[in-house]
Amino acid sequence: MNYFSSDFKLGILGGGQLGKMLLFDTRKFDIQTYVLDPSEEAPSKIACNKFFQGDLMDYETVYNFGKQVDVLTFEIELVNLEALTQLENEGLKIYPSPKTLKGIQNKGVQKEFYAKNNIPTAPFERFENLDKLKTAVTSSGVEMPFVWKCTEFGYDGNGVKIVRQASDLDTLPNVECIAETMVPFKNELAVIVVRNPSGEMKTYPVVEMEFHPEANQVEYVICPARIDDKVAEKARAIALQVSENFNHVGLLAVEMFQTQDDEILVNEVAPRPHNSGHYSIEASYTSQFENHLRAILDLPLGNTDSKVAGIMVNLVGAEGHSGNVVYENIETILGWNGVTPHIYGKKQTRPFRKMGHVTIVNEDMAEARRIAQEVKNTIRVISGQ
Amino acid sequence: MNYFSSDFKLGILGGGQLGKMLLFDTRKFDIQTYVLDPSEEAPSKIACNKFFQGDLMDYETVYNFGKQVDVLTFEIELVNLEALTQLENEGLKIYPSPKTLKGIQNKGVQKEFYAKNNIPTAPFERFENLDKLKTAVTSSGVEMPFVWKCTEFGYDGNGVKIVRQASDLDTLPNVECIAETMVPFKNELAVIVVRNPSGEMKTYPVVEMEFHPEANQVEYVICPARIDDKVAEKARAIALQVSENFNHVGLLAVEMFQTQDDEILVNEVAPRPHNSGHYSIEASYTSQFENHLRAILDLPLGNTDSKVAGIMVNLVGAEGHSGNVVYENIETILGWNGVTPHIYGKKQTRPFRKMGHVTIVNEDMAEARRIAQEVKNTIRVISGQ
Repeated sequence: MNYFSSDFKLGILGGGQLGKMLLFDTRKFDIQTYVLDPSEEAPSKIACNKFFQGDLMDYETVYNFGKQVDVLTFEIELVNLEALTQLENEGLKIYPSPKTLKGIQNKGVQKEFYAKNNIPTAPFERFENLDKLKTAVTSSGVEMPFVWKCTEFGYDGNGVKIVRQASDLDTLPNVECIAETMVPFKNELAVIVVRNPSGEMKTYPVVEMEFHPEANQVEYVICPARIDDKVAEKARAIALQVSENFNHVGLLAVEMFQTQDDEILVNEVAPRPHNSGHYSIEASYTSQFENHLRAILDLPLGNTDSKVAGIMVNLVGAEGHSGNVVYENIETILGWNGVTPHIYGKKQTRPFRKMGHVTIVNEDMAEARRIAQEVKNTIRVISGQ
Repeated sequence: MNYFSSDFKLGILGGGQLGKMLLFDTRKFDIQTYVLDPSEEAPSKIACNKFFQGDLMDYETVYNFGKQVDVLTFEIELVNLEALTQLENEGLKIYPSPKTLKGIQNKGVQKEFYAKNNIPTAPFERFENLDKLKTAVTSSGVEMPFVWKCTEFGYDGNGVKIVRQASDLDTLPNVECIAETMVPFKNELAVIVVRNPSGEMKTYPVVEMEFHPEANQVEYVICPARIDDKVAEKARAIALQVSENFNHVGLLAVEMFQTQDDEILVNEVAPRPHNSGHYSIEASYTSQFENHLRAILDLPLGNTDSKVAGIMVNLVGAEGHSGNVVYENIETILGWNGVTPHIYGKKQTRPFRKMGHVTIVNEDMAEARRIAQEVKNTIRVISGQ
């Protein structure tokens, strides 16, 4: 198949920042792209060949979009699965496959998949709705504290809550959920796996994540994770197993916990480019976005090694600020060594909204970490005129 | 000035591959761009915010375009200088300034500038037209062999010819020209300088260039050049001097010869992102394109150091092939370590047309060079269906 400067068309469901960064590589290779997103102001609107505004959860919209492209991928999991299944049945190449997505979209199904495939994960129980969970708690069938997770439509820490006492349940929505044992852990880690339809697989180095205590959004992603080589090897091996068991094609970000006794537990996966891999644009031989593209087009995968240490800081809207965005002190951080801001292109900020990220690369990890802290303390996403 | 996700508009004259690669960074920073190019199929057409089709040499077209933007730059020197001068007089920020461009557009003026500023350059004489040069040759006022260069509108080796005998002159156009002494040299080098309006200046490492013997187009650009440190220092110092003397803002690519006795002679300059800096996208902390953008917006300049060794191979149309382009064996080279093709997006190939480039990066220069050779021997830009 001739993808380059040809009539070939790649369809992308979702036009957010992940899609936008993927488009850097479709442009680099001059591969035609069609993008579907509900927002007229989607970050991907510029740089795709054709933009379609429409509802990603609507069967007809997704189906009709899919009929116009040669290969279909997505940058967000919340898409109409029935339409994808129908399109795949009709012969369209969709990567990752809706079969894989089906095993991931619902966190209950995803956890059961790990259990079935002997992939280490925290103990859990699945409940059809909140009432059933409440009954279990009342009858001491579930021990507190535990982690409540709604099984669908959660993202960025939404849909996750620690339940310490029965009354905490009262604030939760009456939806399908899981109750997961709280496992004390040393580190939150992630491994990005890339796999093409021919079965070629590679893992990126293990990254280490630090979360903002309130917003439950990632604050720093550090690559490579400052952990023991043996633990890193174990994490990469488990990530490979997860990707293989899912028969996944494209990027799979595997989020994990490193327990106190250095066990690795899989937390959850994202079947697409991931926040934990943004550092790769500046630090890796091949960025996660380019490797996603290579994978879904069944091209050889690129080198996942890093050239230099990389740290990513998310740029989220400051509390108390809503309106037209201003990146306060961005000129200051641009003056520092190895600092690259990525501005996603959302015109309006609001508290904790993901507006961009900053990558800090350096030959020396300690120096990168020092600069990253300075970046975090200096740049602010506020509202202006 | 708030450039990021704001109403600020950067205008770019020219929408070729240089503009296209510059747009990766305007998109990364979410800076609005307007692009003017004569071709409906310009590589920059996608990824700018607004595309205008029009003649870059037409006064009205360039003037009216300039009136719509806040800062104006160009990716090609062949633009209407009178319109730029008028716009600058009316207060528009244009970088590089038309005053600088005026000293560069005409090679005769450029060479005289070097002589006046004591910048080492090969001896030359300027002739109003071919007839006057012929007279000088006949009267032995110019010794053969020499290098004939037309002073305007040459690019990529067009407009340059070695004159070995009087009859060689008969094939040349009757235009203003210079006759330059042929200086035997060891190496063709280039140094890219970046300078902002505040006067902050940086140089990229010296690169070494190898030219295709027939097409007179660059075949390999090697960074860093495999030359003595002292020679490299001298080259960087001279490049800084050239940029300062021109009072240049933005990127200035300074092409040089390293003579047999290690003198540096300035050949010519390009006041914009340059083929000799393409390696920087993958190899440098800050690419030439990002630094051009930083410079013209008077932002702090990024680190020009390299993370790894970088080599660039131009992808030019194979001889005997004209028509819809096919990148033969591109899948093969994608499988090799540190290999990144850039496809400019021109649908039609023809012999020696610049269709793209491939960057090879590696920690080890010798390994990069080996892979670069393999790349050159493997990928072919041909025509297909």
